This record gives sequence, C-alpha cells and structure tokens, in this order.
Amino acid sequence: MQSLRLLPQRAVTAVGSVRVSASPVPSLGPASLRYSGAATPRLIVSNDLRSHGSSFFHTVSTLRQSSETEQTAGPLWKTPRTMPMDKYEYLSDVWRDGIFDNKVVFCTGGAGSICSAQVRAMVHLGANACIIGRNVEKTENMAKDIATARKGARVLGLGAVDVRKPEALAAAAERCAKELGSIDFVIAGAAGNFLATMDQISSNALKSVMEIDVLGSYNTLKATLPYLVESAEKYKVDGKTRPKAGTGGRIIFVSATLHYAGTPLQSHVSIAKAGVDAMSVSVAIEQGPKGITSNVIAPGPIAGTEGMARLSTDDSRRETRRQIPAQRMGYVKEIADATIYLFSDAGNFVNGETIVVDGGAWHTSSIDSGAFKYPDFLLSGETVTGVAGMKKSKL
Amino acid sequence: MQSLRLLPQRAVTAVGSVRVSASPVPSLGPASLRYSGAATPRLIVSNDLRSHGSSFFHTVSTLRQSSETEQTAGPLWKTPRTMPMDKYEYLSDVWRDGIFDNKVVFCTGGAGSICSAQVRAMVHLGANACIIGRNVEKTENMAKDIATARKGARVLGLGAVDVRKPEALAAAAERCAKELGSIDFVIAGAAGNFLATMDQISSNALKSVMEIDVLGSYNTLKATLPYLVESAEKYKVDGKTRPKAGTGGRIIFVSATLHYAGTPLQSHVSIAKAGVDAMSVSVAIEQGPKGITSNVIAPGPIAGTEGMARLSTDDSRRETRRQIPAQRMGYVKEIADATIYLFSDAGNFVNGETIVVDGGAWHTSSIDSGAFKYPDFLLSGETVTGVAGMKKSKL
Amino acid sequence: MQSLRLLPQRAVTAVGSVRVSASPVPSLGPASLRYSGAATPRLIVSNDLRSHGSSFFHTVSTLRQSSETEQTAGPLWKTPRTMPMDKYEYLSDVWRDGIFDNKVVFCTGGAGSICSAQVRAMVHLGANACIIGRNVEKTENMAKDIATARKGARVLGLGAVDVRKPEALAAAAERCAKELGSIDFVIAGAAGNFLATMDQISSNALKSVMEIDVLGSYNTLKATLPYLVESAEKYKVDGKTRPKAGTGGRIIFVSATLHYAGTPLQSHVSIAKAGVDAMSVSVAIEQGPKGITSNVIAPGPIAGTEGMARLSTDDSRRETRRQIPAQRMGYVKEIADATIYLFSDAGNFVNGETIVVDGGAWHTSSIDSGAFKYPDFLLSGETVTGVAGMKKSKL
Amino acid sequence: MQSLRLLPQRAVTAVGSVRVSASPVPSLGPASLRYSGAATPRLIVSNDLRSHGSSFFHTVSTLRQSSETEQTAGPLWKTPRTMPMDKYEYLSDVWRDGIFDNKVVFCTGGAGSICSAQVRAMVHLGANACIIGRNVEKTENMAKDIATARKGARVLGLGAVDVRKPEALAAAAERCAKELGSIDFVIAGAAGNFLATMDQISSNALKSVMEIDVLGSYNTLKATLPYLVESAEKYKVDGKTRPKAGTGGRIIFVSATLHYAGTPLQSHVSIAKAGVDAMSVSVAIEQGPKGITSNVIAPGPIAGTEGMARLSTDDSRRETRRQIPAQRMGYVKEIADATIYLFSDAGNFVNGETIVVDGGAWHTSSIDSGAFKYPDFLLSGETVTGVAGMKKSKL
Repeated sequence: MQSLRLLPQRAVTAVGSVRVSASPVPSLGPASLRYSGAATPRLIVSNDLRSHGSSFFHTVSTLRQSSETEQTAGPLWKTPRTMPMDKYEYLSDVWRDGIFDNKVVFCTGGAGSICSAQVRAMVHLGANACIIGRNVEKTENMAKDIATARKGARVLGLGAVDVRKPEALAAAAERCAKELGSIDFVIAGAAGNFLATMDQISSNALKSVMEIDVLGSYNTLKATLPYLVESAEKYKVDGKTRPKAGTGGRIIFVSATLHYAGTPLQSHVSIAKAGVDAMSVSVAIEQGPKGITSNVIAPGPIAGTEGMARLSTDDSRRETRRQIPAQRMGYVKEIADATIYLFSDAGNFVNGETIVVDGGAWHTSSIDSGAFKYPDFLLSGETVTGVAGMKKSKL
Repeated sequence: MQSLRLLPQRAVTAVGSVRVSASPVPSLGPASLRYSGAATPRLIVSNDLRSHGSSFFHTVSTLRQSSETEQTAGPLWKTPRTMPMDKYEYLSDVWRDGIFDNKVVFCTGGAGSICSAQVRAMVHLGANACIIGRNVEKTENMAKDIATARKGARVLGLGAVDVRKPEALAAAAERCAKELGSIDFVIAGAAGNFLATMDQISSNALKSVMEIDVLGSYNTLKATLPYLVESAEKYKVDGKTRPKAGTGGRIIFVSATLHYAGTPLQSHVSIAKAGVDAMSVSVAIEQGPKGITSNVIAPGPIAGTEGMARLSTDDSRRETRRQIPAQRMGYVKEIADATIYLFSDAGNFVNGETIVVDGGAWHTSSIDSGAFKYPDFLLSGETVTGVAGMKKSKL
Repeated sequence: MQSLRLLPQRAVTAVGSVRVSASPVPSLGPASLRYSGAATPRLIVSNDLRSHGSSFFHTVSTLRQSSETEQTAGPLWKTPRTMPMDKYEYLSDVWRDGIFDNKVVFCTGGAGSICSAQVRAMVHLGANACIIGRNVEKTENMAKDIATARKGARVLGLGAVDVRKPEALAAAAERCAKELGSIDFVIAGAAGNFLATMDQISSNALKSVMEIDVLGSYNTLKATLPYLVESAEKYKVDGKTRPKAGTGGRIIFVSATLHYAGTPLQSHVSIAKAGVDAMSVSVAIEQGPKGITSNVIAPGPIAGTEGMARLSTDDSRRETRRQIPAQRMGYVKEIADATIYLFSDAGNFVNGETIVVDGGAWHTSSIDSGAFKYPDFLLSGETVTGVAGMKKSKL
Repeated sequence: MQSLRLLPQRAVTAVGSVRVSASPVPSLGPASLRYSGAATPRLIVSNDLRSHGSSFFHTVSTLRQSSETEQTAGPLWKTPRTMPMDKYEYLSDVWRDGIFDNKVVFCTGGAGSICSAQVRAMVHLGANACIIGRNVEKTENMAKDIATARKGARVLGLGAVDVRKPEALAAAAERCAKELGSIDFVIAGAAGNFLATMDQISSNALKSVMEIDVLGSYNTLKATLPYLVESAEKYKVDGKTRPKAGTGGRIIFVSATLHYAGTPLQSHVSIAKAGVDAMSVSVAIEQGPKGITSNVIAPGPIAGTEGMARLSTDDSRRETRRQIPAQRMGYVKEIADATIYLFSDAGNFVNGETIVVDGGAWHTSSIDSGAFKYPDFLLSGETVTGVAGMKKSKL
C-alpha cells in the first residue's frame, strides 16, 4: 500500500498552510492512494516551489545548504535580515535608479524568495509595494525587510489573505490602492507544490493546486484589473514619445517550464502552469487594447530558494548543475531583472509572451539524474523521500 | 453596467446543467461583473462546445441550420434517430470490422455530438461502450442510439454522473467494468463553455469551467486508470508481433486549439484546455512504462454540433469556411477516425501527442471575421448576443 | 586540432553518396575544421538517419544487431529479400485492402528503411509507386522488393536522382505520371546526417544538409505539386460524402523531433528539420484551398533502420529503451501506419500538422545517456567514434 | 503564365543587392515559374524585411509614409542624418550609461533600420561596433552615423561582405578583433525577403533565402565563435558576483514570428526563420557550457523600417494596427531594448530562448486584412503588386 507523504506543516511559508480537503478517497485498486498517517495532509503553498525548473529530477538533486547559498548572507527565504540585503543579490547594476518612482506593485506570494526579490528590485528602483501572503507574521516581516531596499519606501504586508478567495483579494487590492495610491504593476506569484506521481495524489490534491495556482492567479488578475486599466491609461506609452512619468498597467505571471516537455512527479503543477500560461495570453489579447501588457516569467532551477531546498536531496547538486547548459543554477536576482525589463519602458512592446530564465535548462533536462531513476521509481510505487523538507513530516 | 448572459437552462445537454455558485461578486470597479437578472446563471456543460476550433470568431459566424447539417438526418445532437445512422456519418470505410471486438470504451461527455461519434465508431468496429452524462434521459437515449451501430452491441448509458465528483466516476467505472467486463479505452470528453470576455466572467465561472474540464478529465483518468493498466498488460503490443486480441490501455483527451495562438472571449476554455493538454503528457510519461498511451485530439470547427449551433450567429457561415485552409468545417466522423487511429494497432507508438483535426484552421484563424470586430467588441463592454443558444436566456 | 570524421563512403545507402563540395575550408580560428585525411569527405545521405528521434544520445546507444532486428529476416535496409516481407513488418491489420487502388505514390528517399515501409504499405493497400534514389542498383532492387507486397503492383525505381536538383525531380515526376498515370500522394523523405558538434562542421557541411533536407523537400514538393493539385481536384473529399474513388492530393514530409527541445551533436539536422516543418505548414496554408493536405510525420527512435545502426554504439541499447515512456523503440510499421492514416479517407481534415510517432520519447529524452556525457563530451573537442557506421571511415 | 516579380535593383539596401543565380528554371507544369523580363532578378537583402511580424497581410497594409515615421526625422533607413539621432529613437532611458564600456559588438545586417538601432543602443551604452553589409557606401555611412551616438565611439563599417561566404565573414571578424580588440557580442541580422506564393518562387529563390538567412547566420556564428568563447571566459558571470567588467560572449539571432502559426506568401522566410530559431537553441546547448548565451529576438510589425515600407500597401495602415493587441506597431527602439536586456548583466541566465517583441501581434494576426483576401488571392495566381518597393520592377 502506498502512502502520500505530503510535506509537513512546519514547512509552510508566508502564503500559508492550506488544508487539503482530503476525505479519504475510495480505493480504486492498486493505483489508489491512502494516507499513511492520521494527521491532516498539508499542501505546501509557496511561491518558491516553481523554482525546480523543467525537471523535478534536477531539483531534487540539489543541496539545501549549497556552497552557493552559503556565500550569501543565508538562505534568502529563511531569516529576515537585520541590515539591507546587498543590492546585487536581487538586482543588476544596469538599471537607472528611480524608474519606478511613484508607482505601486502588488504581489501575491510576495514573501517567497523569488517574488520578494522581484518586489525588492521594484522597490529599490522607486516603487512602493503591497505583498500578499497567508502567514501574517512572515508577510509583515518580509514587507519590513523589503522596505529596507530604498529609503522612504513604503511596503505593505497583508497576511491572512488566501488567493483562492476573490473577495479577500479584492479587499487587499482596494486597501493597497487606498493606502499606496494605485496599483500599477502586478506579480501573480502564489503557487503550491509537492512531489508525487499521479497515482499518489487525489482529485482533491489536484484541485487544491489548481485553485492556488490557476484560480489564485485569476483572482489576483480580476481584483487588480480595474487599477491596471486605470494605470495603463494614465501612463500610456506609444513607443516613440519619452514617457515622462514612466510606465504602468502591466502584469507578470510567474510560471514554470515543467510542462514544456513534461516532468514526472509534477503532473499537478504542469497542468496548473500550462493553464497560467494560457491565462496570460488571454489577458494580453483581451486587455491589450486597453494598454495592458501581460507576460509570463518561467524560472528554471533557482538556487537558494525554499523550493529548491525543500524539493532537493543532498547528494546530487553537482549533477543538476552539470546538465544545465549554463552549468549553474540561477539566482533570484535573475528573475528580478527579467521583471524589471518587462515592467520598465524597455519592455513596452512585449505582450503575451513568456521569458524563460533557466540558463537553457529545459532544453537539456534529464528525467533521469539524481536518485529517481526512470521509469523504475515510477513503477515502484514508492513515494518521494529524502527531501530536506520532508524530514519532519508527520504524515 | 454590464451583464453576463450565460446560456440558458434549456440549452443544457446530457452532461447537465450546472449551477454556477455565483453569489454576486463585489464590485471591483468599471470592469466588474453584475448579473442583470435574478435567475440562477447556468453554465452550458457539453462536450460539443469545444468544436469551435481555434477561433471563437470563426465559430460564431456559423449557421445553426446550415445546408451541411440539413443534408444529414438532422442535427446530430438533437433527435435520437429511429434507424441506424449511416456509417459514413461517423466512420470512414478504411477500417476493418471487428478490430475492437471484446473491448470496452468508457466515455465522459458521451452524449454529445463529437464524443457520441467517437463511441459509435468504436462500437461499429466491435467494442462495447459505457457513456457517462448528467442528463439521465438523454444519456440513456444516446446509449440506445449508439447501440444500433452494430448488432449485438452493448452500450451502457449512465446518467446523473457529474464529472466533478471523483466518487461518482469511480462508481461509474466500477459498474462499467462489472457489467461489460473491462475498461480498455477511455475518452475524456466532458467540457463546458460560454462566450464572454474575462471582464464579464466571475472567478466562480472560471472555477466551474476548470472543474468540469480539468478536474473532470482528471477524475475520469483516475477512476479508470487501474482498469487501463490492467488492459495494457493484457493486450501488450510490442510493435513487431501481430496482436491476436488487439490493443488496450489507452486514453484520449478531447481538447481544443483555442489556446495555441489565443482566442478572445474564450479565456476560460483556453486556460482549461491548456491544462488538459499538459495532463495528457503527464499521463504519457508516468503511465507509459505500464503500457498506457495517452493522447489529445484537438478538433477545429466541426459542423453540425450543438456547440457550433449554440456559439454561432446566422450571418457569416461562408466567412468561417473561407478562412479555413480546407475551405470547409470538419465533421464528427473525422474526429472519430482520429480516435480509431489512436486506439487501434496502427497508433501503438503515438504517445503524449496531440492530433489536431481542423483542416489547418488554427494556422489561419482570424480574430476578426463575423460580427465581433477586434478590439471594438472587447472594448465595448457588450456581451455576446445573437447566438442561437442565447435567444431564450433569462439572465 | 580537431578533425571531422564524416561517415565513410561504404556506408552510403540507396539515396546515394553525395559529394560534399568540401574544398578545404580556410582556418577560421581554433574552432575551425580540418579534414584529417585525404579522402573526399562524404555525407551520409539516407532517409533512415532521422530515426534517432529527439536525442542523439538515445540513438547512439543502440545496438546495430539488436535482438529486435534479429527477429526479422535481417536488417530491413540491408538485403533485398527473396520472398515477400511479412505484412506485419510494415503494416497493421486494421486497414481495409484496396483503399488506394488506382492511386500512385511518389517517394524520395524511398529505398531507405522508413520510407520503403511507407511505400510498401501504400502498395499493399492498392497503390502503385515510384521511388526516387541516388544509387541506381539499390533503388531498382528496392522497387522490385516493394512490388512483392501486392500482386500486380507496379513500382518504379528511379535511381541517379539527386533531390538537390529541381530539374532531375521534375523529370522524375513527369516520368512517374507518364508511366503510372498520376501522382496522388507524395512522401518527401530524403535526408542526410552525421554526428558532430557545430565546432566540428564547416559551413559547407551545413549547406549540404540544408540542400538535401530542406531544398530537397522543396524540390520534391515543387516537382509534384501540379500533379497533386490535379489529384486533389479529381478526388475531392467533402467530409460527408463517401468518396467513391478514394482520396488524393496529399503530401507528407518526414521530419524529426530533434529540434523540439534541442539535441547536442545534431545542430545541422535540427536546423534543417525545423525548416521542413515550417515548409509543411506553408503548404497547408497556401495549397489547402486547392484541396491539398500537407503534414509532417516525426519518427522517434526506430529500431532496425540503417540510421539507428549507423548512429549507435553497441553498449547501451537497454538504456535508450528505458528512457522512452513506451519502453521500446518504434518500428517502421508504425511510421507506415501513420502514413496510411494521413493519406486515407480517415485523415481528410488533418492539415498543417505533425504526427509524432515516438512512444513519447521526446518528452523524456535525456542528453546524457550512453557514452557521450554532457557537457564533457562537447567540451572535450573529441569527435564521435565507436559508431558502427564509422568503423571504416578513412577521413 | 505567372511571373515572379522580384523586387527591383533600386530597392536594394545597405546589405546589398544579391544576384540570385537564377538561370531560367525549366517549366515544371502549370505551377512553374518564368521570369517575365530579361533583367537579372534581384533579391532584396535587408535586415529590415523581417519586420512584418507574424502576418504578411498585416504588413502589406501599412503606409510607407505613415504619420508615425513622419514624426521622426525621416524613415530611419533612408537618409543618413546630419546630427545625432535622439536617443529615445533607439533606446529607453532605463539603462545606466557605460554598461558596455570597452566591449565590441559585431553585427551583420547592421546598416538596416532594426540592426542599426540595436548597434546604436550598444554604442550609446559604451560599446564599440563593427557592422557588416554588402553596400560599401551605405555601410560606411551608417557606421559614421552610429558613431555619433557616443563621443569617442569607434564604429567600423565593413561593406562588400556577403554573409553567404564564410571566408568573407571570417576576414571581417578577424579585422574587427584586430582593430577593435575583441568581439564580445554578436547580432546575426542579415536577411532577405520578398512576397510570393510558393507557386511563384523557384527552387533557386528559396535557396537564396536559405543561404542568406540560415547559412548567413551560421557563417556569422562560426566566424565569431572563437572570439565569443574567449570573451565568455574573460567576462564570466556566475549570477552572484557583481561583474566588474561587465558581460561578454553572447549572440542574438534576429528572427521573425511568421512561422509560429504560418503566413501566406511568406513560405520562404518561414522556412528560413524556423531554421534560425533551431540554430540558436543548438548554440545554447552546445556552447552554453563554455559560457556563451544564444537567444533569438523575434520582432513583430515595426514601423518606419524599409521592410515595412517596402512590403506595405498604402490603404490599410489603420487595419494593421487595429489587429495588434497593443493597437500600434513597434519601434526599432523596442528591439534595441530587448537586445540590451539580453546582452547586459540582467540577461545572464536567459539562454536558448526567444524574446518576441510584437505587442502580442502574432496571437491575433489575421491572414485576411488588407488587399489580399484569403484564399482568393492565393487561388488567383496573381503576384503581389501595389507595394511601394515594387513600383519600378522591371521583371
């Protein structure tokens, strides 16, 4: 009998621990799923978990405490820092200061490693921000931390907001606009993930992922769209006139590359992210005539994130890096830079597209590195173990 | 103030009328949505509605009672026929009889025009079948009708099954296997649709589409997977040995081409079908080693379906056909033929792929034909009217 | 100094040995190319070599004399057989006899394993055929061999035709139409390949591949298009009327999956096949209104072909198969079945599309199996050795 | 009898007039091609012509002297300016000055509107440059013009270089490296185009396009690769250490979106650009481990370019813009900004990808706007007329 080892409660990040309404599913035969423990299974809800790029097998083979992350002040997602983060950890030096002055960015999943870097970069370059999360303390702490990126920056941290609830997001957007004056840019970044074959997950587990990733992104869009339309009108760019007050009216969906070729143990996220990608194109087509741009950023394997730590085993970091054309994992800075490109006056005419930031990883991803041999692992019926985030699982 | 005119209750097909839990959403500004009437909005749930191919604008320009459908015994989806349908309406003559003898096909959305043709073709060539629907009477009638395709055929019509409920599907699969002996082939065909901009639909409306299309497909997969694995083992093909008892262990997801380039007024279906496509690839990867094949059929504009009738206006059928390279719409027979190819011994090595059956339509689709001019219609805030299926809407 | 080991003259197949106009290229720096020997380099020109699917590393890890091919009468590409090939080696039993009666198929690369199976299947089902090759004897022998597939079949073998010469193809098409009465179906199958990094090949080598694959396909199209248009008019199908005399006016381009994710050591073929895919779509769009359909078949790793034999090392066949979802390589029969589907009345509405026949291989392809470790092999500057077809290379 | 009206000699741009080795092709039947005049047909060779984005029909419906271009100092491609171009015509204000100090960019097609803007932007931000063209005078004039973008800038204009000749490019690269010290960035931008159905072009015409676009890009790559590898080593970025001396070792291929869905009258460019896209991915995979990044920029409809002028009719500019989600065409500045993003420290981890800069155009492109109705125009057998560049054609 197989068991689904969902990641433990303790692992939950700012966006929160979400109860998977997992009333035991009826046994459907050998492929069915039974929870091996009594505890309520919990779905990891984090914006970090997309960081495993196109191949799960890549990501599970990455050290939590790699030499890479050790060279920073510590894992980005772990401890609120006491002094401002070095700028180069979240932003290149190529951008002029002040290009987002008097603008506001609204971000779901904003307490995670990737999204917080995106927001921090925007704040450094002049924006104020509102980050949305589930965990109140973590979200508020992250807001404070991000605010250190620029003197005078205002960063609102709104915890206890579930992206699956349209009313909650509508209220958050309204509060953001009221307190900060507008919503000019949106990053839809909340996501959830875990590692399992489709044999091992229930319909309810997939439903939760869909609701967080797809409906959560949709709710983020819907709640902020009126403000984006207003901003697009106000900061209209025509491509030939220097915009005096910068840009506005843009949304980025954070997706993944998992579904480009397909990834074992990640069917649920593949399904969800494919939907998110389609959503972004639809926004580009339908809202483009109002001045909106909508694009996707698809991160590959990103070092130092909670997702990478949580979905990685300790023994094969070198393998993972070897198979990426760039011969290294990415950094959150590199996602932040893509964000700046798309939101700035440089990205005016990019609409309905995806920027993959993965060092070429999805082109060379192997299904086979690390500890999970294809198809043996799939056929074994075993569940994923040995991942850092699972050590204290109670399930 | 805009209103969402969901299609009326009367339009509901076998899969049933689904209540969209549309508690009035809070006003979010000018782009928000209010229902203009008191009646409960209902979501069209049908497997036909995917038939509009890659472009809504194509499909809305198609006559309900075209000369094409008039040449058949009547719209396929409308009246149970009194004598066996002419074989060529649902199957080419190229296939040998009996190639699915002693096999069982399980199909959700099986009372719709497209899926019923797929099942009818399988039955003609030897299979027995179980079709799943919401509407009891319609599903049972269709089952009887399909059974006329071959003497001695057994076709089970299970109504009152909501694809969004895993237990209901599990029970249906169990009954199918019990009464007919196995489940060797699965067609995941249930889908729902309506025409609206994303400004005009609520989070709940998208949720409903996602639950029917994506989770419904997933539930269909999960409920039948153990039987498919069993069948794949039993009828293993190795590509070089003539299979004495034919093939088994295969699933087809019916998707669409709407999201390839993107389609206005169809964001919800685009999102859902992109997810379904990713699901099929995941099945191919994870279940392939057990002998399963999983593929997608993506129909383009198909004549004579309820979807085409319902989502079409009367004035521009000629325009629609003109813009398809093949200079005509497709027929349900052509979807059925693709189904036979994939399920038969001819399709053994096709796995994780999509067969587009659209006459080349998505390559040349215009967003601009018919009555809905881009972007004027989108910017107008108007809702879609003039579609046959909307005439009696009470919303 | 690195050297390019082009495959030796002896390896040349029916399509012929083509002199690469390789006047020694000037040294362009450290990445330049020098031939290490005095012999004229020869480019393998074969329709088989595409069979290595999405990953070179897959294919180079396959035994030449695998147990699979041993179970047949011998490698398909090697010896003209003395008695008719067992039908199941090239065609499933699902198709009705006679569906291509009185039709003519024209095929470039027709002496290769894959294309000869496609043609043989067409002939078995009623067609006459004309196959085009470079090597006169091999092409004529293959024509005789194919003719054994059906009593009374007429198969023309035209050797000494270089697909790079439009006039030669025009003459071949004219002769085919004159002797056999028409050209109703075309298979553009000629292709050339070898294994090398882009550091190791010259501009002239790429040019040769482009001229054989892309221009060769184009020349095949142009030479036969007038006949296809005529056939499409004569055998017009409308999707609802049973065609009394079958179908006509269709072309299939044989491509590959190498460029979907990208494949090391195969940049030249990736570039060429991407062009071929685009060509097919253009034909679908421009010629579709005349009744033509144009589609691509993209084979994955196919057992028993010269390409597989030639581009494979002996030690890792098992590895290759393990990483394919279907857990086996494909057979030429499976490419032939896809051909029948597209050319028959079952495939009427498929236009501008690609049918991938690879068991799901490209979704799970690894760059890393076999003897060529990524990126070590690329960085080493070594040339590919140990491949069966290279043993007697003089270069 | 149809005739191919290749664009006249007078239309030739900086990259030069290239003689199509068009010895009259033999008659191949009704679809064959005869030149109607005695003059040598000339193929337009320009980097501008790709600017028509995904749909020819869009581009042919654009005014030559639109109000847009009138607002600039004149069509960008037409007259060398007497004073420095306003920076905002080729670069956003978001980038810090000096980020390419002491670097060298090498660009083929560099005298065209798009590529010259890309180079000018690089020069403004600190780089020196070498632009390659066919026409000596135009290339040298453009080099002088570009040099005005920054005081002290050195811009080499090398005319009389045919990208189809590897030796010529090798010599140009060597001279660039010798005179300017290195080659750190490469833009492969030369391309040729004209408007015709595949019925109307000869094998030789396609061959010319392939040689200019595909082989020309390959030759550019091969000639510069040793220098790029050297630069990548010297300016290695690891994503976490602030690069003191900036970046290096990167290549951008300028492609198009024509082949994403497919475009009538543009089969030749679709085939070529699909090959270029595949080439870029191969470079990313094979050269990535050496520190190289390789990416594609795919411009949509870009205003004010020679290509847009030449391939456009006068009567439907408004239509073209209406169908683009952004409701306007792009500007060369927007291509330049994408170039800066990819070459700067912000784009370190983007490898093997395509950045589409089209305002969303390819998602909504219609085949049907303007004067060339589908499929009527294709079926008519007429050649494209009414395009500015064709007015004086003698063919």
